[in-house]
Amino acid sequence: MTVYQATASAPVNIACIKYWGKRDTKLILPTNSSLSVTLDQDHLRSTTTSRADPSFDKDRLWLNGVEEEIKDGGRLATCIKEMRALRKQLEEQDPSLPKIAAFPVHIASHNNFPTAAGLASSASGFAALVASLSALYQLPADASRLSLIARQGSGSACRSLFGGFVAWQMGERADGSDSYAVEVAPREHWPDIHALICVVNDEKKGTSSTSGMQRTVETSPLLQHRIKHVVPQRMAAISEAIRARDFDAFARITMADSNQFHAVALDTEPPIFYMNDVSRAIIALIVEYNRVAVANGGKLKAAYTYDAGPNAVIYAPKENIKEIVELIVKYFPQAEKFKDPFGLFGAAGVQPQVIPGFNEAVAKPYGVGAVKSLIHTRVGDGPRTLGAEDSLLGSDGLPKKA
Amino acid sequence: MTVYQATASAPVNIACIKYWGKRDTKLILPTNSSLSVTLDQDHLRSTTTSRADPSFDKDRLWLNGVEEEIKDGGRLATCIKEMRALRKQLEEQDPSLPKIAAFPVHIASHNNFPTAAGLASSASGFAALVASLSALYQLPADASRLSLIARQGSGSACRSLFGGFVAWQMGERADGSDSYAVEVAPREHWPDIHALICVVNDEKKGTSSTSGMQRTVETSPLLQHRIKHVVPQRMAAISEAIRARDFDAFARITMADSNQFHAVALDTEPPIFYMNDVSRAIIALIVEYNRVAVANGGKLKAAYTYDAGPNAVIYAPKENIKEIVELIVKYFPQAEKFKDPFGLFGAAGVQPQVIPGFNEAVAKPYGVGAVKSLIHTRVGDGPRTLGAEDSLLGSDGLPKKA
Repeated sequence: MTVYQATASAPVNIACIKYWGKRDTKLILPTNSSLSVTLDQDHLRSTTTSRADPSFDKDRLWLNGVEEEIKDGGRLATCIKEMRALRKQLEEQDPSLPKIAAFPVHIASHNNFPTAAGLASSASGFAALVASLSALYQLPADASRLSLIARQGSGSACRSLFGGFVAWQMGERADGSDSYAVEVAPREHWPDIHALICVVNDEKKGTSSTSGMQRTVETSPLLQHRIKHVVPQRMAAISEAIRARDFDAFARITMADSNQFHAVALDTEPPIFYMNDVSRAIIALIVEYNRVAVANGGKLKAAYTYDAGPNAVIYAPKENIKEIVELIVKYFPQAEKFKDPFGLFGAAGVQPQVIPGFNEAVAKPYGVGAVKSLIHTRVGDGPRTLGAEDSLLGSDGLPKKA
Repeated sequence: MTVYQATASAPVNIACIKYWGKRDTKLILPTNSSLSVTLDQDHLRSTTTSRADPSFDKDRLWLNGVEEEIKDGGRLATCIKEMRALRKQLEEQDPSLPKIAAFPVHIASHNNFPTAAGLASSASGFAALVASLSALYQLPADASRLSLIARQGSGSACRSLFGGFVAWQMGERADGSDSYAVEVAPREHWPDIHALICVVNDEKKGTSSTSGMQRTVETSPLLQHRIKHVVPQRMAAISEAIRARDFDAFARITMADSNQFHAVALDTEPPIFYMNDVSRAIIALIVEYNRVAVANGGKLKAAYTYDAGPNAVIYAPKENIKEIVELIVKYFPQAEKFKDPFGLFGAAGVQPQVIPGFNEAVAKPYGVGAVKSLIHTRVGDGPRTLGAEDSLLGSDGLPKKA
């Protein structure tokens, strides 16, 4: 008997132009376009196995081994339904195809990074779901077409269907058919973009992005100006910076847009804060690091960006990452040895230090744990279809034990 | 021999609609109108004595006993020059007046609150300077006329020329002649407005407001929208709320404008942060305190506002201050006993507690010192002319020893 099954992995993405606000909460249509860098799946990824089998009772899904309810009309159900509909079309066009669209599916998904890391897993998770179903159903659909469906699972998931530098075009149509992701440039265009994720200890649970962004839409007087007058020109300018591999321009726009996203969150009633004193201290360090570079006649060497939480993501050309790690560790000592996936440091490990001319008074040193961990990664590729050996489902159609 | 001398005191004011940005940095002309509550001089004040004497060599000024240089063309020199010019006009119109405009002046000024309290002393200080010179020179000028001069010392000082609720009309003219303060309502109109100042420990010196606001003017895309489209309607709405003694509306606008001021500071390159984690925790407490009030069918009971620093000023009707002190002290224990100028608490003192239905998890408790002190005050009157017994200058024309 044939087993209809596929496994795929998908990457995390971190936006440079932020998505904040929906014009349609059901279809997940944004109030502005956004742009992100896809991070390398070698380090951070969601992996999903989907199997269609006539012996299954119903659609079921497990996330990190724990079954999640697939609610009627919910985001998971919508994604599965839309993917199944694409398969159905294929089967109707080509009667020789097996009728697997009619079979219930079992889906197992796994993130290789802890939820406690505070990294949004919904983007990579929904992208991996859609990618695995696409492989299961052997759909010819291109990534932009699939991104329309991933978008309905989690808005930013649409950007994880591509590697490299990815724009989510907001679109204009009421049905959302023109609100999808496109590639601005593949990773190969600018592979030198690395990222250092600073996982910041968060003592208090912040406002969820889903509810927070709609409160901003409803109450912030500044958001409309951002949407209409700021984001369109930033989208054009950062796309141009990426095409020209102009890190200075890329960094300026990325930092300005992170700040503006948090500004409109603050302009919300009641105000929303995602950054804390540690986040602010990291900003002060990067601002000073760049100031020294510019004072020495150079250009910006790093860019911070913050999503809906206190973690910093620092984008920089690979050659600067060593200095940045040394800088961060000087102010935020680490309990664990720095995982050094690119071999920047020798046997001696990281030496906490600042570059010459750096004003050390811009931030105060913290104790161990304020920044819980550092993850060094880089721009990466889009979803990968994996082999049977990577299956997360056992022969019984249930998740394998971890 | 006649002694030409006068002493005046002037109050602190805390804005509800924030002043942030100059269209003329020399004349101190703002990019938007602002509105403040004048606080009671019984608790917080600057006191200034001015003496004109032909035996003095030159104009001299002492602040809290320490001589300050009066720089040519500087803000102090400008204020003294403008006041002297008004006196000169009088003397020319009425030749019987003594020609004291020609005499050098000695000026001694004192703040009754420590600089370490982090309260802006420039507003009360320049207002007291102008008020004392006005008394010395026996000028008939009204408070709005004087506010034009105080404005050139420190923008927000113009609002300290009035008691009660005060608007600084931005004006339109290039010479600044229509950029002055007016009374929206005197304290007697709404004496029930009290204020609790939470002095927050600040580990790091923030950006000065003078340089910070101009960076915002130069780099924030959101500021222009605030100036043109948000502030004008808020000025009208909060003036109406004050006239109607509508605390709910007053509180909503005050909190929204504090948030928006900090939002445009964050939208600045590089970003400016004045609030810290303690400031944010106080916001969370007031938001929750108001939430409970509204959930119980009531209206807002308190409004927070933050200037260019981490200190919270909480405005509330007097009847709510007891609950608010108990709430703040529960999360921010105080080293010193609460000074209770209005006799809210009996001999037992403050009992730290939250009101029924309050979700205590909205903030974490801090240790002693995170909020350094609490100051309870209320809406107050405008500058007062004091008697000779309050003089800060001795018979030798030098500051009395403290």
